[in-house]
Amino acid sequence: MTGPLRVDGDRLLGRIRALAEVGALPGGGVCRLALTDADRAGRDRVVGWMRELGLTITIDRIGNVLATRAGAADLPPVIVGSHIDTVATGGAYDGNLGVLAGLEVLARLTEAGVATRHPVAVGFFTNEEGARFAPDMLGSAVHQGALALDVALATVGVDGARVGDELRRIGYAGDAPVAAVRAAAYLELHVEQGPVLEREGIEIGAVTGVQGISWTELTLRGVSNHAGTTPMAMRHDPGHVAAEIGCFVRRLARELGGAQVATVGHVAFAPNLVNVIPARVVMTVDLRNTDDDVLQRAERDLAAFALATAAAEGVTVERRTLARFAPVAFDPAMIARVEATARAQGRSVKRMPSGAGHDAQMFAPHAPTAMIFVPSAGGLSHNVREHTDPAALIAGADVLLDVVRQVAGA
Amino acid sequence: MTGPLRVDGDRLLGRIRALAEVGALPGGGVCRLALTDADRAGRDRVVGWMRELGLTITIDRIGNVLATRAGAADLPPVIVGSHIDTVATGGAYDGNLGVLAGLEVLARLTEAGVATRHPVAVGFFTNEEGARFAPDMLGSAVHQGALALDVALATVGVDGARVGDELRRIGYAGDAPVAAVRAAAYLELHVEQGPVLEREGIEIGAVTGVQGISWTELTLRGVSNHAGTTPMAMRHDPGHVAAEIGCFVRRLARELGGAQVATVGHVAFAPNLVNVIPARVVMTVDLRNTDDDVLQRAERDLAAFALATAAAEGVTVERRTLARFAPVAFDPAMIARVEATARAQGRSVKRMPSGAGHDAQMFAPHAPTAMIFVPSAGGLSHNVREHTDPAALIAGADVLLDVVRQVAGA
Repeated sequence: MTGPLRVDGDRLLGRIRALAEVGALPGGGVCRLALTDADRAGRDRVVGWMRELGLTITIDRIGNVLATRAGAADLPPVIVGSHIDTVATGGAYDGNLGVLAGLEVLARLTEAGVATRHPVAVGFFTNEEGARFAPDMLGSAVHQGALALDVALATVGVDGARVGDELRRIGYAGDAPVAAVRAAAYLELHVEQGPVLEREGIEIGAVTGVQGISWTELTLRGVSNHAGTTPMAMRHDPGHVAAEIGCFVRRLARELGGAQVATVGHVAFAPNLVNVIPARVVMTVDLRNTDDDVLQRAERDLAAFALATAAAEGVTVERRTLARFAPVAFDPAMIARVEATARAQGRSVKRMPSGAGHDAQMFAPHAPTAMIFVPSAGGLSHNVREHTDPAALIAGADVLLDVVRQVAGA
Repeated sequence: MTGPLRVDGDRLLGRIRALAEVGALPGGGVCRLALTDADRAGRDRVVGWMRELGLTITIDRIGNVLATRAGAADLPPVIVGSHIDTVATGGAYDGNLGVLAGLEVLARLTEAGVATRHPVAVGFFTNEEGARFAPDMLGSAVHQGALALDVALATVGVDGARVGDELRRIGYAGDAPVAAVRAAAYLELHVEQGPVLEREGIEIGAVTGVQGISWTELTLRGVSNHAGTTPMAMRHDPGHVAAEIGCFVRRLARELGGAQVATVGHVAFAPNLVNVIPARVVMTVDLRNTDDDVLQRAERDLAAFALATAAAEGVTVERRTLARFAPVAFDPAMIARVEATARAQGRSVKRMPSGAGHDAQMFAPHAPTAMIFVPSAGGLSHNVREHTDPAALIAGADVLLDVVRQVAGA
């Protein structure tokens, strides 16, 4: 065999299509919420492919599945991972690409007779999406010791089901210990889920880390009253305060600039009637930044603005933190390796942070970690219209293959 | 009998309490939605009192009930009216006060042996609240020819029931013709439903008219996307446009000043998730003014701002008018009479518009019309905590009694 080692693109695309059939939605897209029957069927399909490759399969106590190809030396494994659970109206690539590309990498290494010093494992982690059970990245968090196993198993989902019960029910409550495996390195290929690569016409993103995430819920309480009979000067309108906060959030992001993003995604008025000044508004603010100092400043500025604006209107504010993750920086040498490998393959590449959370961030504190992004059409994500061009999927898998060979010591 | 004629306050308060028992809610307040079994029971109770007074009772084809005390001359009646239907979580006074005070006026005229030139009728009109069937003021609109009978009878309510069917079911599909009775004058006593009288320490409101009402629904459509991965500059966020419109609406009311009120009472985000830029926001704007020119300017300014702000964000706007009533001016001589009568009784009085719609506005185009307001504690309305002091209720009824005597020609 001459020339560089490359993945079998048709096989990769075929497996992506085959996995997307499990939990396929009638109008397109996929629904395989974590630990449902559809998730079990998806897991069974991927485990079947792992078996065909003759890999050593372990299932741990939180249902994470790792399939290992032995290395020449007795060293910790290089882990290639992601997830195969989806949101309720998800696509075929989010998570699945990273797992199936990892499988393809192992298949090619075996087919080409490449021996690596380190073992190489490909795996998928339980409940990355967090759409059924909170928090998200639950399986990788337990795997890397960031979340206690018993807490994770006792987690109750949006439908009232318990993680531990559901794991047993679908046959994925394994016996491998958690928080025991330390990776030599961790690699994850993923769709960008944002518009940057497509907009700039770049093929590969060398991910520098994951943005810090701050979710705040604000409950604003005023005085509900008749929209016709209550003079403007006598109102205590939480809807007005919510609007002011909405405008402020955009100004804040513009002012802080850089990687700062800020989103009001959830707003709920009560009683929510055309002719009634609301009694209560609940709203959320999602703030993200790669720089934790700036993120903390954004949080402080938001809190101060909300308090002052509410006080001026005679409205009370209750603040609750729904989620808070500090920014995660990936390993500089690994980032440089992804970048150099893409360049060596003749591909355009850009260093960029990830705006979304990923299993990789759970490994980053303990092992050299990197991620590879490929473009998302229209930047669409968590959407049945999620799409990435076949050539881009294959390009990402080829970069992954070369990086794995280097890191595992071919 | 010496001294001025006054109502029997204990009897009036007793009847208000007795009517509030029908459809009483466990924690206080009343639910007698139009044409329900509770409404029938309330109607039966009031009709019973009308019978005890020996009045001539007519029920028309839309279920309006009028009870008439004959006059000395063959003239059109002075009508004293309001409604006895309530919202789902209403109070004891809204509507009911006007009907029961009218009944008390007729009782006192009879007890005192006062003959009037005009007949005097007291009545209640079907579905004033509009909480079960839209539009509101349905019965008085049909009574005065502003709404066709067949359209009103075919109206389907929020629970799927038809007005015509429900009228028959509860036994209030009468045979008196509609749009046939022209009043010599129309008078309505009502709780203010706003905070103005209480705040200023004034006993009686001489209502100058009803504000014009404009309800607009705006549907804003953008591009739903991931809150973490979508750069600020690439967003098409309808939630941001909604916030800007919310802030604008307050500025608009402040700028136009005077009687202008503006309210965003309904906001609905989709998909309404903390980490998703919304795809769609539906919001309503309730604009009211006594001056139709200013109200039209407010409508134009709102439309222009919404279009420009949405265009700048790459969001589309769909506008729909949910309701539009021009302002109604009451009769100047009648307003002056209410004012002078309250003064003559030694009461403080203030001319003021009504921010809410009332049956009186249906009569205003055809007959000299006026309304008398009494204070609402805390300005609360359409609320189980609705309250007006007993002394204020009696004061309003006493003013009504004297005005009826003057208008009916005692």
